[in-house]
Amino acid sequence: MQLLRTLCQIAAPAGNEAPLTEFLLNYIDQNQASWRVQPQVVTGKEFQDCIILIFGQPRTAIFAHLDSIGFTVRYGRQLVRIGGPDLQTGYRLVGRDSQGDIECTLLIEEETGELGYEFTRDIDRGTELTFKCDFRETESSVQSCYLDNRLGVWNALRVAETLENGIIAFSCWEEHGGGSVAYLAKYIHEHYGVRQALISDITWVTEGVHPGQGVAISLRDSLIPRRAYVERIRRVAEQSGVPFQLEVEGSGGSDAKELQHGAQPWDWCFVGAPEDNVHSPDEIVDKRDIDSMVALYQVLMREL
Amino acid sequence: MQLLRTLCQIAAPAGNEAPLTEFLLNYIDQNQASWRVQPQVVTGKEFQDCIILIFGQPRTAIFAHLDSIGFTVRYGRQLVRIGGPDLQTGYRLVGRDSQGDIECTLLIEEETGELGYEFTRDIDRGTELTFKCDFRETESSVQSCYLDNRLGVWNALRVAETLENGIIAFSCWEEHGGGSVAYLAKYIHEHYGVRQALISDITWVTEGVHPGQGVAISLRDSLIPRRAYVERIRRVAEQSGVPFQLEVEGSGGSDAKELQHGAQPWDWCFVGAPEDNVHSPDEIVDKRDIDSMVALYQVLMREL
Amino acid sequence: MQLLRTLCQIAAPAGNEAPLTEFLLNYIDQNQASWRVQPQVVTGKEFQDCIILIFGQPRTAIFAHLDSIGFTVRYGRQLVRIGGPDLQTGYRLVGRDSQGDIECTLLIEEETGELGYEFTRDIDRGTELTFKCDFRETESSVQSCYLDNRLGVWNALRVAETLENGIIAFSCWEEHGGGSVAYLAKYIHEHYGVRQALISDITWVTEGVHPGQGVAISLRDSLIPRRAYVERIRRVAEQSGVPFQLEVEGSGGSDAKELQHGAQPWDWCFVGAPEDNVHSPDEIVDKRDIDSMVALYQVLMREL
Repeated sequence: MQLLRTLCQIAAPAGNEAPLTEFLLNYIDQNQASWRVQPQVVTGKEFQDCIILIFGQPRTAIFAHLDSIGFTVRYGRQLVRIGGPDLQTGYRLVGRDSQGDIECTLLIEEETGELGYEFTRDIDRGTELTFKCDFRETESSVQSCYLDNRLGVWNALRVAETLENGIIAFSCWEEHGGGSVAYLAKYIHEHYGVRQALISDITWVTEGVHPGQGVAISLRDSLIPRRAYVERIRRVAEQSGVPFQLEVEGSGGSDAKELQHGAQPWDWCFVGAPEDNVHSPDEIVDKRDIDSMVALYQVLMREL
Repeated sequence: MQLLRTLCQIAAPAGNEAPLTEFLLNYIDQNQASWRVQPQVVTGKEFQDCIILIFGQPRTAIFAHLDSIGFTVRYGRQLVRIGGPDLQTGYRLVGRDSQGDIECTLLIEEETGELGYEFTRDIDRGTELTFKCDFRETESSVQSCYLDNRLGVWNALRVAETLENGIIAFSCWEEHGGGSVAYLAKYIHEHYGVRQALISDITWVTEGVHPGQGVAISLRDSLIPRRAYVERIRRVAEQSGVPFQLEVEGSGGSDAKELQHGAQPWDWCFVGAPEDNVHSPDEIVDKRDIDSMVALYQVLMREL
Repeated sequence: MQLLRTLCQIAAPAGNEAPLTEFLLNYIDQNQASWRVQPQVVTGKEFQDCIILIFGQPRTAIFAHLDSIGFTVRYGRQLVRIGGPDLQTGYRLVGRDSQGDIECTLLIEEETGELGYEFTRDIDRGTELTFKCDFRETESSVQSCYLDNRLGVWNALRVAETLENGIIAFSCWEEHGGGSVAYLAKYIHEHYGVRQALISDITWVTEGVHPGQGVAISLRDSLIPRRAYVERIRRVAEQSGVPFQLEVEGSGGSDAKELQHGAQPWDWCFVGAPEDNVHSPDEIVDKRDIDSMVALYQVLMREL
């Protein structure tokens, strides 16, 4: 889990994913020799801070978003949200501005709900702050900020090790309205004819999805995937013997929103481990669900 | 109205339109010999569960959505909505899961507004439920669930009988955020240069749009179509002698949302009969408005 | 400022931009001989009421929206909004219907908040009304309805005078959900490889952005642009000596929404003068901020 720890510690709020992109390009460069298949690495200005890996003859693409939630410094000591972070006075926030490194405290004004920070000095306008990472690992769980979605990224990297045919796309801005999957999806569909997607992301522990009972296959969230595709995934999962749970939600979204609304006929399904303490510094995931996530992705990328 | 009755009885909630698609492909196959022009039928995996019919040298495309509102079974006896169904305790819902056919009753918890069902057993997680169809026809009206939009589909099939030049596109997911018109619109524009659209869908009886006074031409809903195009449609309608009403709304949407926001310069206008008891099992439409809807589409597809 | 006055007086609510488009095509035709470079003028049915000007070898595109907020006449004496106009009983509204010119008064019903008008007769259903223009100029400011965004259009026309390499795109529907930038962005990217954008639009005076202190460079609004691009713009601005302010907001949007969500990898930044009395008949902008807006655009179009 050293790689996961490193991923969680890199600040990459939506709009400023570049530091994580750079880390991943290095990681891929240094590790792909040991992978079963060496992918084509698609990157550069026409892909902003995204990365696409092409393995063999792809039929299915994994989408994993790089960005995280966070805060932007506004005027005075005000903050505005990046995405939808959990809000509690006292959360430790870190960043860097023209005067150097920052470690400050989140403040929620009780009456108005306005967001601010407590620090020894004013922070430059526009500075991004993210949760301070406190990575905790036990025999049964990992706990940290940003498991959503560094665990989805980590899953994709683990699947990459043995992947023979498939695509892995690392996307940006997912936590704040999206903005990269539209062009990634267009590129992938036009160049490889691929229109099957798996969303490698983290979902919620609820009254129907429990920690330790396996990766969640989402039958729907705020959007509804095409039934025929989800049923195929479910049948493959059943035959695989990998533990999994079925999720049904009326809210929530993912990179799939852009696949659903884009100008290509993508089939998509969200497949991810559930976490508790969502979007807080204390996101926690059961290791059994991580194991079944990797195992199910390996099967699905072979069978779909 | 036997065809309309059949269309209303086929369960096809957003995301699971396949049964209706299959019915339509059969219907087109069996009936097109008697149509004035035999269309090219565009269908298959690259179009998911959508169908495009190409007649002659098209200038204008009709969009009619196949899907309906409904419910998905969540955990325990909870339901979540597909689209925006009308909600009343006692509505009869039907579906099918691993244990067989289902006919159950919708429950709205008074205090929380939470949705549930009453049935002799638990229903499989993720099962789709739709309103039980009670199709009622009188001399002056038809009444059923899902006239929105089986009547829009039926209108398109009637127009198909005499259509010489034009396109009919049957779309999916309209009731739940869309997801197919973006690629249908792209395909149609790129292959046929068509960028004029009519939305064959059902609107609302209001203080300004009355049953029996003709098909509604919508000057706007939550979106505003390009004025010059709507004015052309209005002039054609005035010269045609077909009864019609002008609608002006500040809310509501249709497949036009995806045309408006897509990457082609579509002109669009919503033209459809008004119904009362919207999104309930008791949607009702005046037959005179159905007649004028078919008649106006026939004129518009010739004149635009 | 005679040109700005004329631009503010032309009614062009979202969906009916054609009168302003026609004026601009005439203006460009009559004035481009005196511009440093004569642009290619891209216009016509495939661009609806939009205009694209191509100068030399473009690297960056300016987007300026033509449309304004306003009202549509509904039933009886009801109005519905076009975009988000400021609402005060007594505002003077103008328009034209089948019975002739209209000058009427906006009414807000106190209890329900419903919008209506007071006039000597009923107005045709679907008629568009806009604020009556009262253009006021002093030594230090201009004041009028629709400075948002006729000032953004005016800025683009001033920049056009000396522009050697670049694109200016005049867009539609920005105030009412968008609908043209998706295809403008696709055309520009596919034909010229350009994916750098500046949004020439007007922002708000706030506790952090003050009149007279220079054009605002927005680090974010409801959307977050890619950090690396915004930082480049900030560095060019700092080196230019042109006065500017940094804006950080959590809400608000612009034509950038369609760039962010489209299927090309656009980098974008909102750069515009701040106004007070937003979306009212009394929008006011400091002339120093107008000067710095033109000056900064001239520098950015050279340096980016």
